Amino acid sequence: MVKGVRFSGVRSGIKAAGLDLGLVSFDEAVPHAALYTRNKVKAAHILYNERRAARRVAALLVNSGCANACTGENGIEDLATIAKELAGRLNIREEEILFASTGVIGRRLPVETVVAGLPALVAGLSGGRLEVFARAMMTTDTYPKIVEERVPGDGGCSIAGVAKGAGMINPLFATMLAFIFTDYPLDPIRMRRLLPTLSRKTFERISVDGDTSTNDTVMLFSTKPGAPAQAGTGSLKQTLARVMKALALLIVKDGEGATKVIHLTVKSAQQKRVAEALARRIAGSPLVKTAFFGCDPNWGRVIAAAGDAEVPLDPEKVEIAIQGEVLAREGIEAPFSEEKLKGLMAAPEIELVVDLHDGRASYDMYTTDLTYDYIKINASYRS
Amino acid sequence: MVKGVRFSGVRSGIKAAGLDLGLVSFDEAVPHAALYTRNKVKAAHILYNERRAARRVAALLVNSGCANACTGENGIEDLATIAKELAGRLNIREEEILFASTGVIGRRLPVETVVAGLPALVAGLSGGRLEVFARAMMTTDTYPKIVEERVPGDGGCSIAGVAKGAGMINPLFATMLAFIFTDYPLDPIRMRRLLPTLSRKTFERISVDGDTSTNDTVMLFSTKPGAPAQAGTGSLKQTLARVMKALALLIVKDGEGATKVIHLTVKSAQQKRVAEALARRIAGSPLVKTAFFGCDPNWGRVIAAAGDAEVPLDPEKVEIAIQGEVLAREGIEAPFSEEKLKGLMAAPEIELVVDLHDGRASYDMYTTDLTYDYIKINASYRS
Repeated sequence: MVKGVRFSGVRSGIKAAGLDLGLVSFDEAVPHAALYTRNKVKAAHILYNERRAARRVAALLVNSGCANACTGENGIEDLATIAKELAGRLNIREEEILFASTGVIGRRLPVETVVAGLPALVAGLSGGRLEVFARAMMTTDTYPKIVEERVPGDGGCSIAGVAKGAGMINPLFATMLAFIFTDYPLDPIRMRRLLPTLSRKTFERISVDGDTSTNDTVMLFSTKPGAPAQAGTGSLKQTLARVMKALALLIVKDGEGATKVIHLTVKSAQQKRVAEALARRIAGSPLVKTAFFGCDPNWGRVIAAAGDAEVPLDPEKVEIAIQGEVLAREGIEAPFSEEKLKGLMAAPEIELVVDLHDGRASYDMYTTDLTYDYIKINASYRS
Repeated sequence: MVKGVRFSGVRSGIKAAGLDLGLVSFDEAVPHAALYTRNKVKAAHILYNERRAARRVAALLVNSGCANACTGENGIEDLATIAKELAGRLNIREEEILFASTGVIGRRLPVETVVAGLPALVAGLSGGRLEVFARAMMTTDTYPKIVEERVPGDGGCSIAGVAKGAGMINPLFATMLAFIFTDYPLDPIRMRRLLPTLSRKTFERISVDGDTSTNDTVMLFSTKPGAPAQAGTGSLKQTLARVMKALALLIVKDGEGATKVIHLTVKSAQQKRVAEALARRIAGSPLVKTAFFGCDPNWGRVIAAAGDAEVPLDPEKVEIAIQGEVLAREGIEAPFSEEKLKGLMAAPEIELVVDLHDGRASYDMYTTDLTYDYIKINASYRS
């Protein structure tokens, strides 16, 4: 359990059913680092958080059921109104509050509903209620995503992370909302260096549908500010990386309609950027994703997607393997048993390796299959 | 009916069922222009056609059921073997034969099966059998795609085009296979100028799933070579553009699993390349496409996809309209009737206009919705 932070969650009525309002309250205002979506259309909470005057954070209010995106200045003013109310209840400064939202784009937050939910939300704060907070930010997620680890060493420090994902999970900044808390002592400069570095290896390596959200947000908070003891830095970084990767994988596994996770590695490229471009193109191909849903070892769709990426490719060197079985070598089919492959592809996690035999750089990422349930969920998300 | 060309189609046995081999035979060898896929992985027929020594074309052999892609030098040699057999039967030179294939990637053509099918194929040649040829190249297409028009004027010339589409229909070179025949006199230089110009406005403006095929091929043949009469040039170009656009629309309408066609226009952009990039990004978004399937006026997904394109966007100027009803103005929701929109979106053709209010350039294209049937068709295409 991370010291110095309490959590809460209530059903305020933003959504027709389920928890929809979550609160994080820090015993003392803490430093943080944040990454926001690269989409040019940014939700109100991102614009609001970036305008804030204060450097420290005393509370974080998260809602589901309404993205508060494309709501103009009204959407930002709505957050200011809520901040004022919440600051009074928590006896903190308005500028010390951060927001995050997820849900339908284009609708304004029902401010009165949110404000009416605050008393119960504040009353419910407790160090042990991380799960109720995680549940309050779920949309089409089927389970709350929580990862907790102790940082090895004598300090007795922990890291706890929560995330929500499911849809609008894109190749370039993958998570919708993820918050990581630690009582390991971290100064703001180090936090702002660690978060993007580790995100590139974790949250940015997952993809569900290739659509970038207007609301993507990752935040890191340390409840014990200050320079870390020199000795412990390495294990903090490793533990944090493990927590972030585990959260990212929980998001992919719960991708909308997904029945399996595909771990895709493009290896032996001349440059890492080539390997990455090929991996993202293959992971984004609906034909590749439906083939995996159908347990169809259709390696031709993999190489066709690779050939369609805007980077050099020598098809005659390409080797493709699924679950360790080579399907194609030097760009042409290698003998394999269709029956055996169908069986191997029925697993919940599939290894897909595209070997370019062209250099020493590689890139790996995680994606999902594309299924009937993705269509079902998304053909009627608003109703 | 285009003079100087005959068509045929048979079932040779490449596929388990249905016609799979089509032949075009020209009374005399003719000039042609061709466009091939931009995918770096190119099917054997493309590599073979480009290596040919002869400039004129006497016959075109098209098969479905096997893409003959990723088959290496063997795939090209297989075509040479078939060319030799076909040349003997038609009494033409091997180098005067072109090929085109569509079907599963990675499998070699069953050469003996194809050769065994040639006698019946040649025997069946007739000027009136364009439809049987069109049917022979269908894969997941649900109907043959044929457009015929007379060129206005005294010459009595016609244009006939056939195409196959359905899946692996991509944003940058959209058709799988399309062949256009005319007995309007056209010299090769003019043909090679006309084909790419008109393709950019027709075949390159459609998208089904955003996956580029390894086999995409468009060819134009004139059975009456020679410089056109000065007076008639304009009407030829207009008629040809109409035929190509009609074929492109037939491909979109028959997109795998599609229940509707979305005509998307991005207007009032500062530059055409910006309008095009936004249109392609929106047309490729699975969330936008599933919303259209569900008749859900979810304009937030449209603006989120636009914000995710790698071109400048000022969300605060964006206006979005579906079937003429404005859903968002200056980037925020405009009042509209959800019920009315649901009704309007049940139409088989939907107009989606994204107005950037930022300049004078525009770009329009056609795409489909994303449905259960797309998943169904593609989760088990090979079996």
